[in-house]
Amino acid sequence: MTSATETTPLLLLDEPTRASLWTTLVSEIERYLQSVDELPVSPALDAPAIRAFAESFTFEHPLPPTETLRSIAAQLTRYQVHTPHPSYYGLFNPASTTMSIAADALVAALNPQLAAWSHSPLASEMELHLVRSLAEKFGIPRDQADGVFTSGGAEANHTALLTALFHRWPQLAGAGLRSLDQQPVFYVSAEGHHSFLKAAKASGLGADSLREIEVDSSLRMRPDALRAALERDRAHGLAPFLVIATAGTTGAGAIDPIPDIGRAARDHNLWFHVDAAWGGAAVLVPELRPLLNGTEQADSVTFDAHKFLSISMGAGIYLTRHPDVLTRTFGTLTAYMPREGERLQAVDPFSHSMQWSRRFTGLKLFLSLAVAGWEGYAVTIRHQTAMGDLLRTQLADRGWKIVNDTPLPLVCFTDAAHSWDLAQCQRVANAVIESGQAWISTIQVGREKQPALRACITSYRTEPRHIETLLSALDQARSAAENPVV
Amino acid sequence: MTSATETTPLLLLDEPTRASLWTTLVSEIERYLQSVDELPVSPALDAPAIRAFAESFTFEHPLPPTETLRSIAAQLTRYQVHTPHPSYYGLFNPASTTMSIAADALVAALNPQLAAWSHSPLASEMELHLVRSLAEKFGIPRDQADGVFTSGGAEANHTALLTALFHRWPQLAGAGLRSLDQQPVFYVSAEGHHSFLKAAKASGLGADSLREIEVDSSLRMRPDALRAALERDRAHGLAPFLVIATAGTTGAGAIDPIPDIGRAARDHNLWFHVDAAWGGAAVLVPELRPLLNGTEQADSVTFDAHKFLSISMGAGIYLTRHPDVLTRTFGTLTAYMPREGERLQAVDPFSHSMQWSRRFTGLKLFLSLAVAGWEGYAVTIRHQTAMGDLLRTQLADRGWKIVNDTPLPLVCFTDAAHSWDLAQCQRVANAVIESGQAWISTIQVGREKQPALRACITSYRTEPRHIETLLSALDQARSAAENPVV
Repeated sequence: MTSATETTPLLLLDEPTRASLWTTLVSEIERYLQSVDELPVSPALDAPAIRAFAESFTFEHPLPPTETLRSIAAQLTRYQVHTPHPSYYGLFNPASTTMSIAADALVAALNPQLAAWSHSPLASEMELHLVRSLAEKFGIPRDQADGVFTSGGAEANHTALLTALFHRWPQLAGAGLRSLDQQPVFYVSAEGHHSFLKAAKASGLGADSLREIEVDSSLRMRPDALRAALERDRAHGLAPFLVIATAGTTGAGAIDPIPDIGRAARDHNLWFHVDAAWGGAAVLVPELRPLLNGTEQADSVTFDAHKFLSISMGAGIYLTRHPDVLTRTFGTLTAYMPREGERLQAVDPFSHSMQWSRRFTGLKLFLSLAVAGWEGYAVTIRHQTAMGDLLRTQLADRGWKIVNDTPLPLVCFTDAAHSWDLAQCQRVANAVIESGQAWISTIQVGREKQPALRACITSYRTEPRHIETLLSALDQARSAAENPVV
Repeated sequence: MTSATETTPLLLLDEPTRASLWTTLVSEIERYLQSVDELPVSPALDAPAIRAFAESFTFEHPLPPTETLRSIAAQLTRYQVHTPHPSYYGLFNPASTTMSIAADALVAALNPQLAAWSHSPLASEMELHLVRSLAEKFGIPRDQADGVFTSGGAEANHTALLTALFHRWPQLAGAGLRSLDQQPVFYVSAEGHHSFLKAAKASGLGADSLREIEVDSSLRMRPDALRAALERDRAHGLAPFLVIATAGTTGAGAIDPIPDIGRAARDHNLWFHVDAAWGGAAVLVPELRPLLNGTEQADSVTFDAHKFLSISMGAGIYLTRHPDVLTRTFGTLTAYMPREGERLQAVDPFSHSMQWSRRFTGLKLFLSLAVAGWEGYAVTIRHQTAMGDLLRTQLADRGWKIVNDTPLPLVCFTDAAHSWDLAQCQRVANAVIESGQAWISTIQVGREKQPALRACITSYRTEPRHIETLLSALDQARSAAENPVV
């Protein structure tokens, strides 16, 4: 029989090895935090070299821990679009808070299991406290508020769809969709997030059940178009059950007219969900709070702490004002789960989630929020919004035309003097990316698919000097594109 | 305008603060790793005190980072069932590998986004390499192998259900379940995991579509009962589409007769999934490998690295031999996602997953495996299996009767001399738990719901002396239960 003293070294490592590992880990993390803004924002995409490095690990022989960590950290740093870079203007992936990093390590060490409340009572209560505190910020009364941490916004939106379905048709739990008399259909802006398409497919409704409602010139869902679609579907014998407003679309940062959409949902007695995955952060800033007005009417809300709150991936959150709906949707009884939670009138996380044993996701938000306070976050969100305003103003001053309309720090723009097609926009974006000075993308905005460049302030570390760098890189790319070397 | 230099301190923290934070973090983690076996395995469940501590954080004023980390780490350590404890004999939640802890911190710092391949090319390729390497171990040829990391086994099993559905009925993507002529039904052992029940509900099939097939006296699915159910459902106009074999049930560790179940699935032309979330680790140990024979026939496999491979929560993995099925199930096109991956013939993670932007889950397995090697894991799994055998033998020697039959280290047992009901078992389990010396649970085994105690070797740090402690605690609890103080 092998004794554990022989087996643990390779998994636990011995004390001196761990000491050396921690030193290296901290120094790698510190080096990254201190110098990320000096790195090129994005790597050369040498796919064969990247694949070859990954596949060079055959796992046939144990490798030295510290050296392996150092070497892999170096290669990861080499081959990654640096989402934490102050000049990354991409897809809402932020620079992590330092408390997130500490929390993720501590969670890995304690490795609590968030399935049964009685296994991780404090972790469960910390998450519940966060859920209720955030729900309050969105206008859901604390004593009705419930929710759950998810792997990300996709799972939170998926959860919204499922809770809306099970709220309306409890019989779905047993007999499924084929037992209904009518096909359920649901509504989101044409600019809404595609996770709803995934959810439509995965829930058995099918993509055809998702109605993409047209938007106005500001890319906000048109409430009249929503109402017309609802009437039309009803007249065709379909069963509308869910209406989604988006607070900060992924493409162009549009905020739907939440109160009007909520009213339409209520008039038809439908579940009203607000996808505030990114824009929801506005509720933490008094002067931005009105942007989210109407969310207090929502039956559920998606909010991603790993976006505007700069928590490390992934920390999605689903919030609801229906304290029983999660258990009704996900609850099951098993012979092997501890039942202490029930007796103590506490919530077993597994009964609230698509997941079973779950990671303690909430700690990184809890620690970050404890250290920054609500006010610290307000300052940060205000700062990022100001950086967006600065970028917008400066772009306009320098001969760019802004083609989206949002108070959030997401700017879609094109050349003011010429009409660029998507390929032209992409050439300019590529030139900026290849300069290593910033990462931006292209987008086709709205129904007219207006080709544009897209830059979103995602890092709390973005300062005016980074905006200046982006503007210069853009000017340079534009000149090069307009005066190509033949 | 607020400058970033004013805003970052609360999220990034300044350098001296971070230095102090890392020192505290490392010392908290080290203390935990070094002394977890001296802690009582489980906390007193003082729900009001626990809730009061969580709610004492109002987030109204910034708190000092290092002290807050220390205080919360202390309270989390106080109020948690210590799943990493060598005397935790519970629900497959392991002691994390040290490389997992380092990886989770590094991932949080680099914060790569695993949605677009081009954003995180190396991270994506490292995960793909792991997926293919593990698939090979399960007998899926490397050049056909595909897969994806998931939040846990529930998502992996859910993915299996969805891929089986979309493989059989591609039209589901658009028109949904209500467009089918027949109700799809699927099959799992009565001892199988309840995540399939959640998945049945969430997929719109409904719980009634899940057929729980009866088990034999060893709690293994009966292939004749499966075949009879398939014939019966076909005769009733239903549409079987998926058969699941379980390799290591949660309750009693039973391993279904995988080859026979696979044959039944093939004879009926159905998707064959093996839920090897826990027991799958046997493929890494030559002498245990035959237990998983037949898995090479599987269309898909669930394997949780956060169980027997001791990776921190959560690191589920879905594997398949159908390289196109994930994209067919989850793929969507959006205006805002970078398309570089397509051009480079690389896989965009978001097209393979229920998730969208996803955490880089694979690094903790990659680093752990690089440092331990396959052989290091084989040694560990062998050791844990030997600890299970030791427990089994010793229990039998001390007047306990083993009531389950598995070569894996999960032992269900009761008093050999008396017939205990569930309450009696629970009293004994409670006495063991309250002693602080070990954590075990109760279970009702099989169709007869035989009440029993349940102990599973989940920690790679469990040694013979811990088994001895458990045996003494059990003896003591039994005496107390048999000779109650009146």
